[in-house]
Amino acid sequence: MASRLHLVAVIGDGTASEGSRPWRLAEALGQRLVDAGHRILTGGLGGVMEAASRGARRAAAYAPGVVIGILPGDDAAGANVHVDVSLPTGLGHLRNALVAHADAIVAIGGGAGTLSEIALAWIHRRLLVAYRIDGWSGRLAGTRVDDRVRFASIPDDQVFGVDTAEEAITVLRRRLPEYAEARRAGTAG
Amino acid sequence: MASRLHLVAVIGDGTASEGSRPWRLAEALGQRLVDAGHRILTGGLGGVMEAASRGARRAAAYAPGVVIGILPGDDAAGANVHVDVSLPTGLGHLRNALVAHADAIVAIGGGAGTLSEIALAWIHRRLLVAYRIDGWSGRLAGTRVDDRVRFASIPDDQVFGVDTAEEAITVLRRRLPEYAEARRAGTAG
Amino acid sequence: MASRLHLVAVIGDGTASEGSRPWRLAEALGQRLVDAGHRILTGGLGGVMEAASRGARRAAAYAPGVVIGILPGDDAAGANVHVDVSLPTGLGHLRNALVAHADAIVAIGGGAGTLSEIALAWIHRRLLVAYRIDGWSGRLAGTRVDDRVRFASIPDDQVFGVDTAEEAITVLRRRLPEYAEARRAGTAG
Amino acid sequence: MASRLHLVAVIGDGTASEGSRPWRLAEALGQRLVDAGHRILTGGLGGVMEAASRGARRAAAYAPGVVIGILPGDDAAGANVHVDVSLPTGLGHLRNALVAHADAIVAIGGGAGTLSEIALAWIHRRLLVAYRIDGWSGRLAGTRVDDRVRFASIPDDQVFGVDTAEEAITVLRRRLPEYAEARRAGTAG
Repeated sequence: MASRLHLVAVIGDGTASEGSRPWRLAEALGQRLVDAGHRILTGGLGGVMEAASRGARRAAAYAPGVVIGILPGDDAAGANVHVDVSLPTGLGHLRNALVAHADAIVAIGGGAGTLSEIALAWIHRRLLVAYRIDGWSGRLAGTRVDDRVRFASIPDDQVFGVDTAEEAITVLRRRLPEYAEARRAGTAG
Repeated sequence: MASRLHLVAVIGDGTASEGSRPWRLAEALGQRLVDAGHRILTGGLGGVMEAASRGARRAAAYAPGVVIGILPGDDAAGANVHVDVSLPTGLGHLRNALVAHADAIVAIGGGAGTLSEIALAWIHRRLLVAYRIDGWSGRLAGTRVDDRVRFASIPDDQVFGVDTAEEAITVLRRRLPEYAEARRAGTAG
Repeated sequence: MASRLHLVAVIGDGTASEGSRPWRLAEALGQRLVDAGHRILTGGLGGVMEAASRGARRAAAYAPGVVIGILPGDDAAGANVHVDVSLPTGLGHLRNALVAHADAIVAIGGGAGTLSEIALAWIHRRLLVAYRIDGWSGRLAGTRVDDRVRFASIPDDQVFGVDTAEEAITVLRRRLPEYAEARRAGTAG
Repeated sequence: MASRLHLVAVIGDGTASEGSRPWRLAEALGQRLVDAGHRILTGGLGGVMEAASRGARRAAAYAPGVVIGILPGDDAAGANVHVDVSLPTGLGHLRNALVAHADAIVAIGGGAGTLSEIALAWIHRRLLVAYRIDGWSGRLAGTRVDDRVRFASIPDDQVFGVDTAEEAITVLRRRLPEYAEARRAGTAG
């Protein structure tokens, strides 16, 4: 459906404390994403997930239903308070694979969980954006996860590195239509 | 979060054609659910899933973000056009298990897929409502899926049978707080 | 590979106590299955799963590796002591969906968990056998889970009802090649 | 159960061609693993998965049931011919998460799929071994995937780097009991 909003996943360190650099980046990003017309998807818990969700709620364009959390546990009540739509899965860490199916994935720092999401999103041929900060987002920013040609039509396909929410929004605006079109054109990933 | 809307899954025959009895029931239910203040969750495809989603869009209280679809495939574009939030999973029929994690599940007819969702929702101690029509919803309406005591505090726990959207809404209004409280009080399912 | 042994899942009540009717039936079945040249797959825990595994170990044809358990938890040590190959999944009850992918599924009694496995196995077009005893196996023995034509070439496709291990073995011997061939010939389920 | 064989996953490039370096390393490793008393688990398809399985079959200690494949698709027949126990999952790439639940995981080269398995195995506190060759195994050999303290009792916890099957076997012999004990002692990961 042409008018359906894009779903942008924000991933990263689930233990980042309020006021830390990843937290502040995630909060700013969440707000900008919603004002740019996106919905946001997270793993529903704390740290970067909570910060992005809180930021989304502050956006001028915020409306209920814009912040979606996919939880590892069985109980919708496990989500942080900023999540509008709380989807419990009972999948544990495997819910990471669901987060990796968003239209685009933006990583802010992060450890092994974030790394698993980046790897799976790469396999599923999603648009990937990564902040150039400590953690796996910084290590993979500007690189390709492996040598496969994900899209013949996108020679500079990569994990796009950014430093600010504004840069992330710019990448998404330019690249989301290109990736959606390339996925449609190509064989399933 | 106290103010988070309940997520009510509508499940049933994915091949029901427009105008068939399950379709009309699902469409009426989708509309009533949204006007009663719920979000709806479906498997995102056709038949009952599409009808409930279309009905939801017609509700006076409809706002974008109210209709959520959890897709079996890898591609968000696979959802019916009435889905606001399309979550591809790549899980195939196992996405049924995610649908079964909604706050409440309402079944309208249905075959083996619907049956798997009812069984899993029963295991996960969800509130279950079933229309008394042909198919598994009718066969299980008014019964218990098995003998386990899901909640000591709810002696009449069962798959609650209904004939109309109005009755379904009544069950949800009365029972959702009771089941949420019982799940919180009890040990995890 | 022609010589690969068939994998037959035994499902049923996970709380059946030693010496109960489902337990004795499962134990006898496990032994007969292995002597008939099959491997057995269970959910790895107690009741019917444990009984079938113990029976398998008593078979004259038993060799290590014949008894496989797919566990809901993260830890291989959670399996009953008769399991040779313990596969932890971290999937919780969703591991039922993996059990439902065996070449054939034999149900002995059972509640909602067993029901979810039968429903998913039906969707995945597996050969289904069910004991005519209390519980979901007895309720579905001799019936079809829904009206879909799973295989044009098998007009009597159904959940085959049996009373004894000998009858179950007979169904498997006759039907496994037929179902394998029909699945290969048909479109994916 | 004390006498249950350890399950060692071999992961890596699924497109490695016969005779390539990863193929030869995997084949040698598969053989050595079985002769050291382990079962092997792979994703059941080609490249490193097939090579390790073929090697396992050549082991003096090989017995049917030692080579287990967890397939992404619905059909057991999709496994390479050396797999004894073929478990179709219908999970697509999410079956990687199941492979990551083996007792130990040994990586030989590999791209994004292998990376997702290493990341998930790290989260699930598995013993990890990686060959120092091109690909993600080489990049992570001798490092920690992130800063978390997985086990207070194992200060040198890391992705253990190796060059040969002999070295891999040595790490497994020394470390498997230590990791099993530490997982039992610690809180769930």
